[in-house]
Amino acid sequence: MVYPDLLRGFPDEEFEQRVDRAQMLLQEEGLSALLVCTEPEVRYLTGFHTPFWQSPTRPWFVILPRSGKPIAVIPSIGEASMNETWIDDIRTWSSPNPFDEGVSLLADTLNEILATPSKTPDENFKIGLPMGSETHLRMPLVDFEQLNEKLYPNIFVDATEIIKSLRCIKSEREISKISKICQIVSDGFASLSDLLNVGMSEREAFQSFRLKLLELGADEVPYLVGATGPGFSDIIKQPSDRIIQPGDLVMFDTGSTYDGYFSDFDRNMAFKFADDKAKSAYKIVWEATEAALKIAIPGNTTSDLWEAMGSVLETESARNDSVGRFGHGLGMQVTEWPSNTLNDGTVLQEGMVLTVEPNLSWGDDHIMVHEENFVVRADGIELLSRRASSELEIIP
Amino acid sequence: MVYPDLLRGFPDEEFEQRVDRAQMLLQEEGLSALLVCTEPEVRYLTGFHTPFWQSPTRPWFVILPRSGKPIAVIPSIGEASMNETWIDDIRTWSSPNPFDEGVSLLADTLNEILATPSKTPDENFKIGLPMGSETHLRMPLVDFEQLNEKLYPNIFVDATEIIKSLRCIKSEREISKISKICQIVSDGFASLSDLLNVGMSEREAFQSFRLKLLELGADEVPYLVGATGPGFSDIIKQPSDRIIQPGDLVMFDTGSTYDGYFSDFDRNMAFKFADDKAKSAYKIVWEATEAALKIAIPGNTTSDLWEAMGSVLETESARNDSVGRFGHGLGMQVTEWPSNTLNDGTVLQEGMVLTVEPNLSWGDDHIMVHEENFVVRADGIELLSRRASSELEIIP
Repeated sequence: MVYPDLLRGFPDEEFEQRVDRAQMLLQEEGLSALLVCTEPEVRYLTGFHTPFWQSPTRPWFVILPRSGKPIAVIPSIGEASMNETWIDDIRTWSSPNPFDEGVSLLADTLNEILATPSKTPDENFKIGLPMGSETHLRMPLVDFEQLNEKLYPNIFVDATEIIKSLRCIKSEREISKISKICQIVSDGFASLSDLLNVGMSEREAFQSFRLKLLELGADEVPYLVGATGPGFSDIIKQPSDRIIQPGDLVMFDTGSTYDGYFSDFDRNMAFKFADDKAKSAYKIVWEATEAALKIAIPGNTTSDLWEAMGSVLETESARNDSVGRFGHGLGMQVTEWPSNTLNDGTVLQEGMVLTVEPNLSWGDDHIMVHEENFVVRADGIELLSRRASSELEIIP
Repeated sequence: MVYPDLLRGFPDEEFEQRVDRAQMLLQEEGLSALLVCTEPEVRYLTGFHTPFWQSPTRPWFVILPRSGKPIAVIPSIGEASMNETWIDDIRTWSSPNPFDEGVSLLADTLNEILATPSKTPDENFKIGLPMGSETHLRMPLVDFEQLNEKLYPNIFVDATEIIKSLRCIKSEREISKISKICQIVSDGFASLSDLLNVGMSEREAFQSFRLKLLELGADEVPYLVGATGPGFSDIIKQPSDRIIQPGDLVMFDTGSTYDGYFSDFDRNMAFKFADDKAKSAYKIVWEATEAALKIAIPGNTTSDLWEAMGSVLETESARNDSVGRFGHGLGMQVTEWPSNTLNDGTVLQEGMVLTVEPNLSWGDDHIMVHEENFVVRADGIELLSRRASSELEIIP
């Protein structure tokens, strides 16, 4: 299959729109600026995209003032890369420097923003920083303490809701990247019956699937978990040397990427034959998925999705609480806000990209998970993953 | 080439030795326990190994008391995987639960440890937590504040040095895994002249190298940066659509993994021909590497390595400070403590796995980086990467 040939990265217009939305929210909250230091947030505001984040040595900061472009406060090793983005104001320090790992430069920049004469009357001395659910501070705690000492007291307030509301709604450009990787992975799953066979080790099966996804055009396969066996209870597992047997199930769940955007869905198949319990479990989770997809329209909530799936599962099977949710947001990360849970209650809006991911307990303490990816449109969903077969597929 | 067939994971003995060393350090510092929440630290103490950490939704905690095995306080989705490790005491909560994301369970467990009757007289009410250089707290800041409110005041003290001194020294089992991935990547680099050619796009070049590394037996290629051109100033770059020209240089730098352990080295080559400036820059950085490798013996320091490289570079070329160091530790992460810098001063010890990574400015604002991986042995180094050619290689 030929996939659409998408432009890499984004035009400046995309970032201008993101920043406009963010600055409107800063104004609503009376905040002077937003400070972010984690990979998706920095990339969201700047376009800065590198696997260098895997090195824990250096912190990276981006500040979004109330008006104007974001300001990057970063280690000098990243200056050339940041210069390629739409950002103009790039301030660097030579890192690593454990004695002052960007703390003074960051404090000076924040103080400069707070002292700006264009400060509006409704603006208080508060800087938004993501501190809530699903966030963390990617800098040493002792450095954060030092930073606080160099600023007005208690200046940081939680900005999780701002970041969440921005990132939850995807632009058409973002959706096209997620759509592309979902098509690639759908083709990858379709090829499993050619790739896998009885007698292969689980490790070989993983690697042949990973290679296939890359050959089909995935940039990377950062997330690949799975299992083989008559059933399995560990659904975030790495491969073992187990040899695939007739009657085994196989489950693969992958977060693959195209241009920094993730797919996240799984497929379950059986080798040679499947017992009735497995077929029945498969059918129930498929129906639960179907129930959620039918009601995923603007105005309904993530908790409605949860309930729709839960009611199918509870009628026909044992409840399983270990996963804790039935799907989540999807985009620059393999999981994002919101969560499909009893209490989440996030109202679905056009442009949200979500997974539905019901799971059930079956047989001998086994878990079966199904997952699909879609975008919420005005009148229902646009499926991004190719819908799983309604019956458990058999690999001959 | 046939690589040694290593056991996956580690026997319990490996973890017992790690924990023994850690508990000796806890006693020296008078700490009651160690708390960790980041992937490498959790894996180091437990063996828990999954790409699931890419999901930002759920925090994970491991507590190492002064005696006995570590205790896992984790989301229930990880229970089955954690059960496969050597850990016995696994406490779970159903996650996501933004209202109490493991905070109460973690606080209860820590308070239980602090109240234990086996508490020794030299033990104060302090819990070590990595808070210094190269660390971060992987839980929401607001949750950390809540945790502090449920514990004795000011109970957390910085345990960065404990973690650093543990992880800096690798066991023979760890070294064998790093050695294996370094052999695989060395073979990958050796095949570049067959894989790459003029007319190929940078993106195609990246992907063919990535596929080759996987085919040769790398589990994953989480870190791959590089560039092509007459020279380049961005050394943490992702590929573009640029077409490779005669006379171009190519640089690839990869952190590939085997069983969760990284290689981290790069290679520079030229297509068809190379100009004298590039050849000369190559030679200087090669000589700088050589100078460091010669003195990497126990008792010398990371600052000695820095000085040995710097003196070769400064004699012959312009200084470049943007990278900030000339190499670093290597293991479960693509970069680890220590850093080869002027002030680091870490004393080299047997079993340390390090990179040397000198870089220089040359030509038109270009940077050239060389890197090798080695383990410090009693009487010198054991090279883990296959030494780069002393002259710039030409791809025909």
